[in-house]
Amino acid sequence: MKAEIISVGTELLLGEIVDTSTPFIAQHLANLGIDVYFEATVGDNPERLTTTIQRAARRSELVVLTGGLGPTEDDLTKTTLAKLVNRPLVPEPQSMNKIKTFYAETKRPQPVHADLMGEIIEGATVLPNEVGFAVGILLTTKQCHYLVLPGPPAELQPMFEKEAEPRLAQLTQHGQVIKSRVMRFFGIGEPALEDCLHSLIAGQQNPTLATYAKQNEVTLRITASGSEKAAVARLLDETEQQVLHLAGQYFYGYGDDNSLEQVVVQLLQQRHLTITAAESLTSGLFQSTLANVAGASQIFSGGFVTYAATTKEQLVNVPAATIATHGVVSKETAVAMATGAQRQLQTDLAISFTGVAGPDELEGHPAGFFWLGLALPDGRVLTRSVQFSSSRNSVRDYAVKSGLKLIYDYFQG
Amino acid sequence: MKAEIISVGTELLLGEIVDTSTPFIAQHLANLGIDVYFEATVGDNPERLTTTIQRAARRSELVVLTGGLGPTEDDLTKTTLAKLVNRPLVPEPQSMNKIKTFYAETKRPQPVHADLMGEIIEGATVLPNEVGFAVGILLTTKQCHYLVLPGPPAELQPMFEKEAEPRLAQLTQHGQVIKSRVMRFFGIGEPALEDCLHSLIAGQQNPTLATYAKQNEVTLRITASGSEKAAVARLLDETEQQVLHLAGQYFYGYGDDNSLEQVVVQLLQQRHLTITAAESLTSGLFQSTLANVAGASQIFSGGFVTYAATTKEQLVNVPAATIATHGVVSKETAVAMATGAQRQLQTDLAISFTGVAGPDELEGHPAGFFWLGLALPDGRVLTRSVQFSSSRNSVRDYAVKSGLKLIYDYFQG
Repeated sequence: MKAEIISVGTELLLGEIVDTSTPFIAQHLANLGIDVYFEATVGDNPERLTTTIQRAARRSELVVLTGGLGPTEDDLTKTTLAKLVNRPLVPEPQSMNKIKTFYAETKRPQPVHADLMGEIIEGATVLPNEVGFAVGILLTTKQCHYLVLPGPPAELQPMFEKEAEPRLAQLTQHGQVIKSRVMRFFGIGEPALEDCLHSLIAGQQNPTLATYAKQNEVTLRITASGSEKAAVARLLDETEQQVLHLAGQYFYGYGDDNSLEQVVVQLLQQRHLTITAAESLTSGLFQSTLANVAGASQIFSGGFVTYAATTKEQLVNVPAATIATHGVVSKETAVAMATGAQRQLQTDLAISFTGVAGPDELEGHPAGFFWLGLALPDGRVLTRSVQFSSSRNSVRDYAVKSGLKLIYDYFQG
Repeated sequence: MKAEIISVGTELLLGEIVDTSTPFIAQHLANLGIDVYFEATVGDNPERLTTTIQRAARRSELVVLTGGLGPTEDDLTKTTLAKLVNRPLVPEPQSMNKIKTFYAETKRPQPVHADLMGEIIEGATVLPNEVGFAVGILLTTKQCHYLVLPGPPAELQPMFEKEAEPRLAQLTQHGQVIKSRVMRFFGIGEPALEDCLHSLIAGQQNPTLATYAKQNEVTLRITASGSEKAAVARLLDETEQQVLHLAGQYFYGYGDDNSLEQVVVQLLQQRHLTITAAESLTSGLFQSTLANVAGASQIFSGGFVTYAATTKEQLVNVPAATIATHGVVSKETAVAMATGAQRQLQTDLAISFTGVAGPDELEGHPAGFFWLGLALPDGRVLTRSVQFSSSRNSVRDYAVKSGLKLIYDYFQG
């Protein structure tokens, strides 16, 4: 099936917002085996929108429209499409009700065109909006399928995944079961992971494997299809085993919404272990990253930012002699920072970060070089040194993730 | 002048990357008074690319192509356009030389199609690439102007601003001087700033004013034009004065690349003042944000993450009685945290953050409520309470920026 995505909105043409909805849709269509050949953006102008939809309908089997479903005069996606397919707009009772109730309860004045959000093109399937008021639609005409979605990612994404995706799967794969699994990796770049999995990726048919570069990490999406649920699950399991065999040392978790900090906080919670940190290079970024996870307070009560040599001595008792002999960017200082922090707050674990953010080198170490120390409950300290090269902020992000991976690896034994 | 932007690359159609280059170009074209009516994305396919360029050339006076200038077989933007305008590709000596030298010096094998990066369409103006190898071009035919730019933002942005923008300004405004000034605001949303500046924005002609929402802040771009440099500068100055009169309390600095942390670190450096922090709500994010600024170590040596009540007592000596009487989210605790941190590290200033990240409420305060304390060199402590509502991470970001703004405001007297 060939598809085309049309984004509607003058704000997009002015460059005022970055369009993340189109790549989201494109990625999900690719997973369904639907080929996107064109994407277009058009302003809130009925003539130009009509021309763009007409062309798309001529050359594609699925036309996805996103944006222009709101309650203002400029929101004309549904009215334009309705005119083009020569069908009336009709109210969708549930959404209409939701809109009326909201304005009544909040006592806000109802915008003149608010009803538009609850209307659908006659004969279309309603796609409910769990976040906002504008309903989506899936409309099949003789010429093609039209999928109409709201523009804001927060409304579009759940609607696509819960309402649109299963229906598109039915349209494209009669009776087929399609399942995806996302695996997450840290410590390896996207090209290197592809090389590493070359034997699986080359000549892939079912499952398919696709890698995606994220900020300093990589995800792998394995997608399998078949006529039977159990067989599809088995295919995914087998491929996962092969992937782990080839690149298991970089793997840390599953899922698009996951992160190293979520995995680590969960591991600590399960084991009832507490942690603190002494951060030089990362200057608090590890601790704020931990606190991003709701419930982190169960395992984390606070810690230290020891940016200068003096604060390393004063706050976590790094001996001045250690710094004098080995330098601030050294295994010895990393060890002293971790054990000092652990002692100060009497935690089970403590992690330290010391290194060179750049742009200049420090103590003979190039920018991007750092040491990690992880003080363990039994008194041992694990250390790891890393040479990374990138911008100042990327080095910090990479260091925080390296620290989280060190903790993850410790729990894997 | 009417323009159209075409992004080239199958990776865009697969949704593997988010296209930030198109909004960048669109925004800059809008500032030049060039109207973008359509944007299109097309894969690495010569037929589909040809059709898309032909249509754009028929309906627009400027066709901007971005992407597909690299050294692989899939990079076919220049060859496709050359065929379409019926002109040969010719080597551009300087770029060719740069490419040859690089591969010779690094001893890497030169990709088969590397030369393509240094070629231009005969008769086109060369736009040098200061970051990579692929040169851009500006080509004027009888039908329209073609601007061809690399896809990666790091290469595209400097090429656009330094090479393309002045030439486009010449094409659109004969002999006109165009100057922009960017002002930055915190503590006010984009719609509220627009309301506040309504008298200036309504009926604007010269200068024009445009607001842009950033993460928890807003920028305002004032663009003036005229036949004379001094007159244009005067126009900008006068408008800035009017803006400051209406919204000065939210203003903190100039420029697209600026940030609150840069402004604050600079203010502290100029005054030779040191700072530390005790962070509960923000859990280290303020300190890592400060350290984002190169040279922050001159004014910041470290500090405290006091996430739990116990660490507030242990690390910065908040009296247990203060917490018991007033709660952790209170003016009194914020004051004790700031003065405690200041005393511990003997700094000139110390700032504290305590509040409710959410999603749940705390001590009867709703999510998004927080207190800031700023201990001053003379022993006084400034405090500020804020009620913000958004997601957990956005609350933290807003709190860090509120803290920076509190420091900025202190220096403004």
